[in-house]
Amino acid sequence: MSSDVFIAGVGMTPFGRHDGASMQDLAQAAVLKALADASIDASQIQAMYNANVYGGMVLGQVLMRDLGITGPAVYNVENACASGATAVHLACQALWLGIYDTVLVWGVEQLTRLGGGTIPLQRNDYKTELYASQGMTLPTVYAMRGTRYLYELGEKPELLARIAVKNRAHGVHNPFAQQRRAVSIEEVLQSRAIAEPLTLLQCCPSMVDGAAAVVLTTVRPQGSRPAVRIMGSAVQSGHIEEGCDDILDAEITARTARMAYDQAGVAPRDVDVVELHDAFTIAELLYYEALGLAERGGSADMLRRGDTALGGRVPVNPSGGLLAKGHPLGATGVAQMVEVVWQLQNRADGRQVEGARIGLTQCTGGGIAGVDHAASSVHIMGV
Amino acid sequence: MSSDVFIAGVGMTPFGRHDGASMQDLAQAAVLKALADASIDASQIQAMYNANVYGGMVLGQVLMRDLGITGPAVYNVENACASGATAVHLACQALWLGIYDTVLVWGVEQLTRLGGGTIPLQRNDYKTELYASQGMTLPTVYAMRGTRYLYELGEKPELLARIAVKNRAHGVHNPFAQQRRAVSIEEVLQSRAIAEPLTLLQCCPSMVDGAAAVVLTTVRPQGSRPAVRIMGSAVQSGHIEEGCDDILDAEITARTARMAYDQAGVAPRDVDVVELHDAFTIAELLYYEALGLAERGGSADMLRRGDTALGGRVPVNPSGGLLAKGHPLGATGVAQMVEVVWQLQNRADGRQVEGARIGLTQCTGGGIAGVDHAASSVHIMGV
Repeated sequence: MSSDVFIAGVGMTPFGRHDGASMQDLAQAAVLKALADASIDASQIQAMYNANVYGGMVLGQVLMRDLGITGPAVYNVENACASGATAVHLACQALWLGIYDTVLVWGVEQLTRLGGGTIPLQRNDYKTELYASQGMTLPTVYAMRGTRYLYELGEKPELLARIAVKNRAHGVHNPFAQQRRAVSIEEVLQSRAIAEPLTLLQCCPSMVDGAAAVVLTTVRPQGSRPAVRIMGSAVQSGHIEEGCDDILDAEITARTARMAYDQAGVAPRDVDVVELHDAFTIAELLYYEALGLAERGGSADMLRRGDTALGGRVPVNPSGGLLAKGHPLGATGVAQMVEVVWQLQNRADGRQVEGARIGLTQCTGGGIAGVDHAASSVHIMGV
Repeated sequence: MSSDVFIAGVGMTPFGRHDGASMQDLAQAAVLKALADASIDASQIQAMYNANVYGGMVLGQVLMRDLGITGPAVYNVENACASGATAVHLACQALWLGIYDTVLVWGVEQLTRLGGGTIPLQRNDYKTELYASQGMTLPTVYAMRGTRYLYELGEKPELLARIAVKNRAHGVHNPFAQQRRAVSIEEVLQSRAIAEPLTLLQCCPSMVDGAAAVVLTTVRPQGSRPAVRIMGSAVQSGHIEEGCDDILDAEITARTARMAYDQAGVAPRDVDVVELHDAFTIAELLYYEALGLAERGGSADMLRRGDTALGGRVPVNPSGGLLAKGHPLGATGVAQMVEVVWQLQNRADGRQVEGARIGLTQCTGGGIAGVDHAASSVHIMGV
């Protein structure tokens, strides 16, 4: 780990419906913003990492062509919800080693063309698809975790709704979020049932398109803005282990977070701002604990105290999170990092976490809600 | 580049139709062979790289689960025909840096379920698909290159057919090849026309399934077999440049090869055996020149002299190449390396290149026949 890795520039499109655009139009828009933000020319890019799930073959090379450059290695990376963060992680590896000095990473997805959400796999694999065919889809799995969580803590569904209220209130101030409307607890609870106790407003929008991009470099950025350094970057995977019967233990995420904290040399209490994977409201509560922000069982109190709201001790999802922004799979992990850079550079107008010096991003996804054949990634950034 | 990277074990499935198997069944079969060949247990694997084009989300994680292990980072990598080689390249980067000591790389594809060849993209992108919609598909592009090549050299289609005759003769001795039948020049020329001057037997089979795997490690393998080291590993991309009107200049491949040669510290004349990307007969002739095995225009004579046949100076595609083996996209680049390891370890029964010490593999693919939004990868291995 000889070289430091800095985020020299960031950019993203608004998340939402982009009917007129092709997938590489979206990616290009984000990339051009990131290049301009870094004040560098596309010709300086030595490698490109494209994160995407459903875009098809060599999408990264198509964008390279559209940017009018030729030559750099292009890597197309997929890791479900963690695709974007995994692409950043691979880029960090190469930059640490000194293989490249300056690289471009972007994530992009266009789910509106697919009808939203995920599409059937091509691999005709009963072992993977049996559960889904019997109704064991992502909302169902998270609903079971939510039910268990409420039972163990003696809580009511109102607790889960508070996550949606908080994040959607944050999202009002984010011009890049798809859903920019504040909601009340009652409204959340009365929205359409998806999988008890989860209602519609507790699930992230998946009818969404978007792209996000970062320029990473080993050269400390000059200029008036604080230089944002990637202090820790971890990717892990996992599956349900024999004998594991605790569905509230987000083990894969906790393990990935420990690696990132160790590398960064910081503790959870040092983190000032977090963008985490709130695909469903219950997920955010479990991740408070997996990320070490709260003790086991302490997430409910943490939320109620307002610790994780804007103005609190460690604001979580000031961008509005996936719940307000939407979740264009490949783009999500990169967009989280864009938000954290804005926060650390005091550029998050209307939703700024004052004095933030250290930020963390987390994505966990893949099969069966991040508990089986899953991918997880955690990044820690600092100024 | 502090650490050496060795190929500790290799394995592959036969390439062909595997109706009863799921995609991860194929991958698992190849992986278990590679692990046994390396005499290591799956639990020693620190990261896994899955190369695949059409298999869907988190395929690598599904295989990890089926192997009964949990934890290691899993990277799902796509780079069209160069997917497998790109996955190896990313693994090399991490091993060089010392991030991991031992990793697993595999490629897998199941094209028979898709009806063979490539399937339509989801991205609704007229800029990319316009040419294809007007007939500018891969066979067409290679046919134009073939026509131009024959014109410039004053050759007849018989020359192209000689590639098919050579590689299919090699493939007779490869139990992993899909088509194990020797053919004559007349038979090649009289097979069904695909795109003049290319006939059916000059195109690699794409109705094919298969998987290949390698175990890579920074620890020099012990035992009686020569240790195979990866001396050079390069990935590049490219597109048609303004003003480039020479369709016989495989520029992307030549550029990638130069990087690999430079890193390995060897010259083309040092190479004893080559597995290259003969998706169509003309491709092999162009790649002789791009890889520096022949001067520009010298490939025809090189072929006629028998230099590249088994028993010649530098046998090319002793496995039978894509023409005999078939081309299951994600698996191809890894399978080339499996063959070279067998050659360097004197394990290629019936098709052994005697005394081979240095081998080279090459894949170039992507949009429009490796000339636009394309990916290329070259690896050099030695004992």
